[in-house]
Amino acid sequence: MQETFLVRLPKGDDLLEAITRVFQEKGMRKAAFQVIGAVDRAVLAFYDTVERQYKSRDFPEPLEIVACLGNVSEKDGEIFVHAHATLAGEDFRCVGGHLMPGTPIFAAELYAAPVPGEVPVRRFDEPTGLALWSWD
Amino acid sequence: MQETFLVRLPKGDDLLEAITRVFQEKGMRKAAFQVIGAVDRAVLAFYDTVERQYKSRDFPEPLEIVACLGNVSEKDGEIFVHAHATLAGEDFRCVGGHLMPGTPIFAAELYAAPVPGEVPVRRFDEPTGLALWSWD
Amino acid sequence: MQETFLVRLPKGDDLLEAITRVFQEKGMRKAAFQVIGAVDRAVLAFYDTVERQYKSRDFPEPLEIVACLGNVSEKDGEIFVHAHATLAGEDFRCVGGHLMPGTPIFAAELYAAPVPGEVPVRRFDEPTGLALWSWD
Repeated sequence: MQETFLVRLPKGDDLLEAITRVFQEKGMRKAAFQVIGAVDRAVLAFYDTVERQYKSRDFPEPLEIVACLGNVSEKDGEIFVHAHATLAGEDFRCVGGHLMPGTPIFAAELYAAPVPGEVPVRRFDEPTGLALWSWD
Repeated sequence: MQETFLVRLPKGDDLLEAITRVFQEKGMRKAAFQVIGAVDRAVLAFYDTVERQYKSRDFPEPLEIVACLGNVSEKDGEIFVHAHATLAGEDFRCVGGHLMPGTPIFAAELYAAPVPGEVPVRRFDEPTGLALWSWD
Repeated sequence: MQETFLVRLPKGDDLLEAITRVFQEKGMRKAAFQVIGAVDRAVLAFYDTVERQYKSRDFPEPLEIVACLGNVSEKDGEIFVHAHATLAGEDFRCVGGHLMPGTPIFAAELYAAPVPGEVPVRRFDEPTGLALWSWD
């Protein structure tokens, strides 16, 4: 069984890519994680359940990563990170959504916990239009 | 010792009930968890410390579950889930509070970690008016 | 290896100090945690990356701790808690940032997970102006 870990993510890297790379390097295909820190700017998405597509918005200012939660599983044979983020700027008001690429790290600290057992696989789910775990 | 797990919760089920059922089915009486996903609508509550009662508000629109954190313990001999949720709609602004029934799942992914040792029991706590753990 | 735990934090204590004391009493120098609950008032900070300093704001009203996430490591030889918090008042709108002293607990439930391996040490990081982990 792999162990839980704490790691600092590199300044300037894209947050979602940096998280994904950590799990790729460890070969960890089933896990949960949390991140706190700050980003230089961010892109979040909201899933429109009627149009069945993600709608992204750019937040072009420094933001605290107040909470970023996610999980790791498999999609198309690759390690796939699903993350949601709560962010706050200098007015302290929170914005939140599905974390997208385009979110460069200012400073970020990741805690991750591997999860034992069969790796869940994301496949197209007709009722939602999303790629969801198919084994439960 | 039971193990940590990831599980997808059923679309359409009430979020708080679905989380509770997972722990009931596993017989897991002491745990912590996190959920990300989306709901079709939601009910959150704020505890008014002067009137000593929860005040609920309905949010009648699709919302991302940006972060839902909670714990599992015992109350009146039953498994009891305490959860707080941060939610965001298509304007990305976050609302948050105590998760209440009346929050149907669109899609939800649960990570849970059992906690070893004596199960904490919630009992009425006079200073707060809440049901809090009595063993510490 | 130390075990994960759940603990209720004392009403009236400062949230950041209470979290720190729990880890000091356990001698736990590397961990991650989450807290839900409520506070009587709060102080949060936003790190201004241009002026390279934290800017604090006082929120002088009762707030739910919707999510408080953090980690434990070492700074100047002492156990150091880094925590970010999402809070919501009776209008349910979330504010968030770096958790500061000046945040008295109304009720708070902590889940913590020790992390194995070498304890990360915070040292001054020139690119950010922050005290970051220096071993990775």
